[in-house]
Amino acid sequence: MCGTENTTLPSRRPAASNGTARSAPSPDTSSVINLDQGDPTMYEAYWRAMGDRCSLTISGSDAMSYLSNPKGTCWFLLPELEKSIRRIHGLVGNAAAEAEDGCYIVVGTGSTQLVNAALYALCPRDQPEPTSVVCAAPYYSCYQEVVELLQSKLYKWEGDAHKFNKDEPFIEIVTTPNNPDGSIREPVVNRPNGKVVYDLAYYWPHFTPITHQADYDIMLFTFSKCSGHAGSRIGWAIVKDKEVAAKMTKFVEVISIGVSKDSQLRAAKILGTICDDCQTLGTNTKSENFFNHARRLMTERWEKLHEAVKRSESFSLPKYPKNYCRFSDEFFETHPAFAWLKCNDKVKDCESLLKAHKILARSGSRFGADPAYVRLSLLGREEVFNIFLERLSTIKIGISNGNGHHI
Amino acid sequence: MCGTENTTLPSRRPAASNGTARSAPSPDTSSVINLDQGDPTMYEAYWRAMGDRCSLTISGSDAMSYLSNPKGTCWFLLPELEKSIRRIHGLVGNAAAEAEDGCYIVVGTGSTQLVNAALYALCPRDQPEPTSVVCAAPYYSCYQEVVELLQSKLYKWEGDAHKFNKDEPFIEIVTTPNNPDGSIREPVVNRPNGKVVYDLAYYWPHFTPITHQADYDIMLFTFSKCSGHAGSRIGWAIVKDKEVAAKMTKFVEVISIGVSKDSQLRAAKILGTICDDCQTLGTNTKSENFFNHARRLMTERWEKLHEAVKRSESFSLPKYPKNYCRFSDEFFETHPAFAWLKCNDKVKDCESLLKAHKILARSGSRFGADPAYVRLSLLGREEVFNIFLERLSTIKIGISNGNGHHI
Repeated sequence: MCGTENTTLPSRRPAASNGTARSAPSPDTSSVINLDQGDPTMYEAYWRAMGDRCSLTISGSDAMSYLSNPKGTCWFLLPELEKSIRRIHGLVGNAAAEAEDGCYIVVGTGSTQLVNAALYALCPRDQPEPTSVVCAAPYYSCYQEVVELLQSKLYKWEGDAHKFNKDEPFIEIVTTPNNPDGSIREPVVNRPNGKVVYDLAYYWPHFTPITHQADYDIMLFTFSKCSGHAGSRIGWAIVKDKEVAAKMTKFVEVISIGVSKDSQLRAAKILGTICDDCQTLGTNTKSENFFNHARRLMTERWEKLHEAVKRSESFSLPKYPKNYCRFSDEFFETHPAFAWLKCNDKVKDCESLLKAHKILARSGSRFGADPAYVRLSLLGREEVFNIFLERLSTIKIGISNGNGHHI
Repeated sequence: MCGTENTTLPSRRPAASNGTARSAPSPDTSSVINLDQGDPTMYEAYWRAMGDRCSLTISGSDAMSYLSNPKGTCWFLLPELEKSIRRIHGLVGNAAAEAEDGCYIVVGTGSTQLVNAALYALCPRDQPEPTSVVCAAPYYSCYQEVVELLQSKLYKWEGDAHKFNKDEPFIEIVTTPNNPDGSIREPVVNRPNGKVVYDLAYYWPHFTPITHQADYDIMLFTFSKCSGHAGSRIGWAIVKDKEVAAKMTKFVEVISIGVSKDSQLRAAKILGTICDDCQTLGTNTKSENFFNHARRLMTERWEKLHEAVKRSESFSLPKYPKNYCRFSDEFFETHPAFAWLKCNDKVKDCESLLKAHKILARSGSRFGADPAYVRLSLLGREEVFNIFLERLSTIKIGISNGNGHHI
């Protein structure tokens, strides 16, 4: 994913299962651990425990055609995936996605492809200057890479939305909860000639209270962060305007002639199972549907992380307010997928400090922020997370380590 | 796929199977038939007959991570797919793809994504002018759309390679056998500062004799045309230069953070099964491995098509030479996936003529050629192909139809 060029990946090869290598490696206790990427492998154990309920069998003759729904606005979207997407948003209450809400679903190869599709759809082709794309810092590091990849004449990266003050057309990407820092956000530019794309990848009840039903013009979601199935590369956009949905569809059509049907079938099944469980087990936290299970894990991880940070005395974390969650009928704090960790004032480059302790993190500078910050994924496997906590809690900045050196 | 905006798709919804809609519709005898797109549904019956041998079961916890092979040049390529790809090229003899041939495999969301990735990798970012991209007419209609999609400053579409005579860097795409006309091709520009991308989507023994082992710098292939699994969106590039492979990987990383692992697992299994059958059943035409089966079908379709064209007296088709095929140890003609049909001199617009007879085809003008030509897919289901033949054979241009009208 964005940033892999700058990191050393774990040295052990993927664990084999049935002669195949379907999952990423686990480190031993002395190896470098990679928390640079938000790889959501922490949920594997949950899905493994589901046994055959979520298994998908695809025969050799299934899903061969390019076409999924020739009459639909998004002709490559499988009707069963569309149904599961609309259903899960209806149950969770995080986004207005019913057909009667007057919106269209566009499927993409991950939501990353749909960021590009949205820019393509929103930028007029006949402008003398490219449209500015902005996002409030700290912003997701991949947006800039996506925008600048092909040096398009349609759009250009203008960085931090807080600094944008031109009387020109612009697109603001609003990520809420935000990647990297988990904050709840709204547009900040609020000038004429602007359009907003909402990246709601983390607006699910395991990460944050569902405070309202989002109902914006373009909302992006991803299977990776909803259920943890990053390897399937399924994202979706909920789009109000039919013409915008058609243009986004056209983008995905030209760039990749649609989206894997195998993964669409799998996403339809898994999202459907999550919905079934929410309905049969209820949504309150006494029962363990996927979201409640995942929220419990995230809550535990955040508690442990706060303890480790406290022990180390060298770092700080953002504070998150408590809010009422419509889905689980409880008050709780946001538990973001990433920790936005800040070193104390003695250290300028937090990424390098952690690297010296065999922890790979992504520097704040990649997010348009101070390199005293790093982003750390909290979505890895249990054993990796525990090694991370152990290492983090022993880092003492500006405190003598006993042999006279300040580390 | 490219061109769907310009066509009317079949009006019947996809056939449901197990409550799902995994395949495209079949028309009744009075409806419009769509031969505009190269949707390879003719092979469904073969794969259905394979029963469980090609079924893939993916459990809920499989393939969740983004990562497939962290140490590999293409970190999202599953090792088992890489193995099947290298194996099938070794068995068929159509391309040098063994690791000892000194080449890298990059997987893409269809080969379409890899055309873009190749352009990104081959075009320097520091040039004052975009690099020209050319292809000899008639050329695949989607290249122009891909090149022009985002108005990149890296490259621009310059059309027919035969007309390119600038002293500037250029990239020539060589499609062989060619889409739309099935001709066997070589580069035509042959000037300094050029790079060549070979699109070998149709260089398989069901379409054309395998006359030599292709061994070029960048070669593109696709699962869609190799086995007929278009819905999986799996393509691959065989790349000699490590840096080019790394840049192509970077493109796919930024644009879609990799490629569906579910589809990669499926492609690995199906390509592996084709290989197993070629080895156990042999490669000569007495036995029915996939390629021999598919070649027999293509040969039968071409024989029927020639008869229908002859009966109609209104059209002509290209002629293809016979060649020795190293794979099947026989001499035979190319049997392209598409018919490149030309109306006789009485008609200027073949697409409109066929549309009036409820046959959707893609006009020659879309391929940089004369609109007296159309491209017609021969890869559809049996019943659609038979309706097409019936309709085609009754079209009489410039011949009285009995009631005094010339049709």
